[in-house]
Amino acid sequence: MDPSAANAQAVERLMEARPVLRGVAPAREVIDGFDGRKLLHAGPPIDWERASGPLRGAVIGAAFYEGWATSEDEAASMAADGGIELAPCHHHRAVGPMAGIVSPSMAVYVVENDTHGNRAFSTLNEGYGRVLRYGAYSPEVLERLRFMNDEMAPVLQAALAASDAGIDLRALLAEALHMGDEGHNRNKAGSILFLKHLAPLVVEVAPSSGLAARILRFLGENALSVLNPVMAACKAMADAAHGVEGSTLVTAMARNGTDFGIRISGMGDEWFTAPAATPDGLYFSGFSSADANPDIGDSTITETAGIGGFAMAAAPAIVTFVSGKPSDAMAATLEMYEITVAEHRHFTIPVLDFRGTPTGIDLRKVVELGIAPRINTGIAHRQAGVGQVGAGLVRPSLDVFERALVAYAERYGFA
Amino acid sequence: MDPSAANAQAVERLMEARPVLRGVAPAREVIDGFDGRKLLHAGPPIDWERASGPLRGAVIGAAFYEGWATSEDEAASMAADGGIELAPCHHHRAVGPMAGIVSPSMAVYVVENDTHGNRAFSTLNEGYGRVLRYGAYSPEVLERLRFMNDEMAPVLQAALAASDAGIDLRALLAEALHMGDEGHNRNKAGSILFLKHLAPLVVEVAPSSGLAARILRFLGENALSVLNPVMAACKAMADAAHGVEGSTLVTAMARNGTDFGIRISGMGDEWFTAPAATPDGLYFSGFSSADANPDIGDSTITETAGIGGFAMAAAPAIVTFVSGKPSDAMAATLEMYEITVAEHRHFTIPVLDFRGTPTGIDLRKVVELGIAPRINTGIAHRQAGVGQVGAGLVRPSLDVFERALVAYAERYGFA
Repeated sequence: MDPSAANAQAVERLMEARPVLRGVAPAREVIDGFDGRKLLHAGPPIDWERASGPLRGAVIGAAFYEGWATSEDEAASMAADGGIELAPCHHHRAVGPMAGIVSPSMAVYVVENDTHGNRAFSTLNEGYGRVLRYGAYSPEVLERLRFMNDEMAPVLQAALAASDAGIDLRALLAEALHMGDEGHNRNKAGSILFLKHLAPLVVEVAPSSGLAARILRFLGENALSVLNPVMAACKAMADAAHGVEGSTLVTAMARNGTDFGIRISGMGDEWFTAPAATPDGLYFSGFSSADANPDIGDSTITETAGIGGFAMAAAPAIVTFVSGKPSDAMAATLEMYEITVAEHRHFTIPVLDFRGTPTGIDLRKVVELGIAPRINTGIAHRQAGVGQVGAGLVRPSLDVFERALVAYAERYGFA
Repeated sequence: MDPSAANAQAVERLMEARPVLRGVAPAREVIDGFDGRKLLHAGPPIDWERASGPLRGAVIGAAFYEGWATSEDEAASMAADGGIELAPCHHHRAVGPMAGIVSPSMAVYVVENDTHGNRAFSTLNEGYGRVLRYGAYSPEVLERLRFMNDEMAPVLQAALAASDAGIDLRALLAEALHMGDEGHNRNKAGSILFLKHLAPLVVEVAPSSGLAARILRFLGENALSVLNPVMAACKAMADAAHGVEGSTLVTAMARNGTDFGIRISGMGDEWFTAPAATPDGLYFSGFSSADANPDIGDSTITETAGIGGFAMAAAPAIVTFVSGKPSDAMAATLEMYEITVAEHRHFTIPVLDFRGTPTGIDLRKVVELGIAPRINTGIAHRQAGVGQVGAGLVRPSLDVFERALVAYAERYGFA
């Protein structure tokens, strides 16, 4: 079977999806099947025993946050014996950066794809430093989560409810790509565009000017504040491309800190996994590659949707953060055209004469050319409770793509 | 005399100037010698008789705004017979975009150069469309000016008074250049960085949440809101470089819509002028080059300070606004290295491997190489009362540089 027509259909759905941020709500109220002592996590399925340090740390922190446990041992035993159920974000139309933990009472952004009707969810971004998503769970981490979820989220919820149009995240991303962002690790422009849209609404609905100012500072000082809505937008786009019979388009790439996994449009809900690689990058003062956990997070949904590492030519300044030279950023994008099926109609790169970003990874091309997708990423400490130690670049093993193609061939005949 | 050492000193002062936005105040309260029926305008000195349409329109609008006149004829006669005094912004440490009109009761940004102690001023930016600076003076133009000066300015004044640090405009510009701005016609990133700094302060000091929200919308929806503070910052930098004995550094380039003029660091307050050229560019629907007024505005202070047309390689997306291809934007910057004496220490261009912007125009190099500075600019309708008709690119005549060099040689001996 020749998957070209199926891939063209799938990538068309990916590009024409129009994700709009429409609301904020407690996760348990909007995510189906999310009740009891259940936590969502990044990447393909995993149990406590095989979970990496940062994922374990985030599970412990979420158990504290939900009031399920008061000590690390208590939380760990609960998670180990099934007293806390773990499930991938991706199984619940959600995505989470790094450990990606979503607990039932955390607030999530609600993104609707106006073209195809599907929805996607992501938590609010915590900012830099010691944060849950990197496996930290100290009192300051929990206190910040309480501010975000108990004080900020209801205001954002009311602000978005007061906006007829919501926030068109595809348009925001298109603009941010003309402003030096690539949408994964560099979201400086997108985050202040996000602030620009929200600020007047927040001021109008906040119960006090003090809280409004605190929220505007929190969002404005966090150059990643739009990352989570962007990830949900990419998830909404990728989900729209999923399930096209015969398509070899990659519709999810995700890591749980132990395994890297992909899903293929024409291959249903099956995950193809392999051990996660460890990123190369730049480390914060006092840390080195010896501290790095293997790659972790659902944020590779950005590369899956044609931005992030695939759009680095739009964001040459990112090399100060992830290593390399501006010419490397350009080369990364140019190489990704080799393994994709389209140039994005809405996401363009000015310095490449407004060429569309390389979009829609074709499993066949990855395997035939031996070119793995390029991902840029944060780097978590390998131990629970520490946090971020750097940022860098990584490529997943080709093995996972090869096995997916074998499975495809078994199902559809050789591609 | 060899001006190299003097130029090195002058450009060092230009680069090390650190302009910080510290306040907003009525022009008459902070600008020396600004009282009575006096208006400041862009460019070198000019009288009513020689003034172009857009400058005349802005003078009429300012006379209406100040309550000096109630009809066009009344305002025109007043300006023609000296009942309204006209003086260049540059003679009062101020700069203004396009017609550049400052009237005594208009609010101005107060920018302080923390390194050398000098100050500079600029009005608040009106946004796009029918605006005074392009020579429009309809009721909506005056109503907007009243909102800006009577309602918004006092809040910005209180907001900046509440900020110990002020807003470091050199740092803001450095960041914006990594986000696809060049600082003259593309200030998308800088304007929302500006909003990010101001938003929480505005919320804290505004008398009502309604006014706070209106101000945040006004600033946020205007992708040029930071242009005027940026121009004042550039003026503060250029003034710091002015007055170095023997220096051939250009410390002002400005146009009043009739004449283009420059000042030279080592040549005191003398203007060297020639007729202003007319920009080439892209026109708004319904307009063409036949509608274009010759080049107008003090905004060329940006190119004088090493950004704007000189930094276009940082802003490839600008070509959608001013015409050309991204490679033209790159070529513009590369050419400007030929006529400048330094690469800016603080303003860098990621795609050029973080090379500093071409900074400090050397009069000698312009004349010897026959390369005029590249300027990008808005285009005003040639008739009073119409407004902006497009945006484009322009180079001043070499003649003005040649005459300045002759004058320099007469004063200092041949350079």
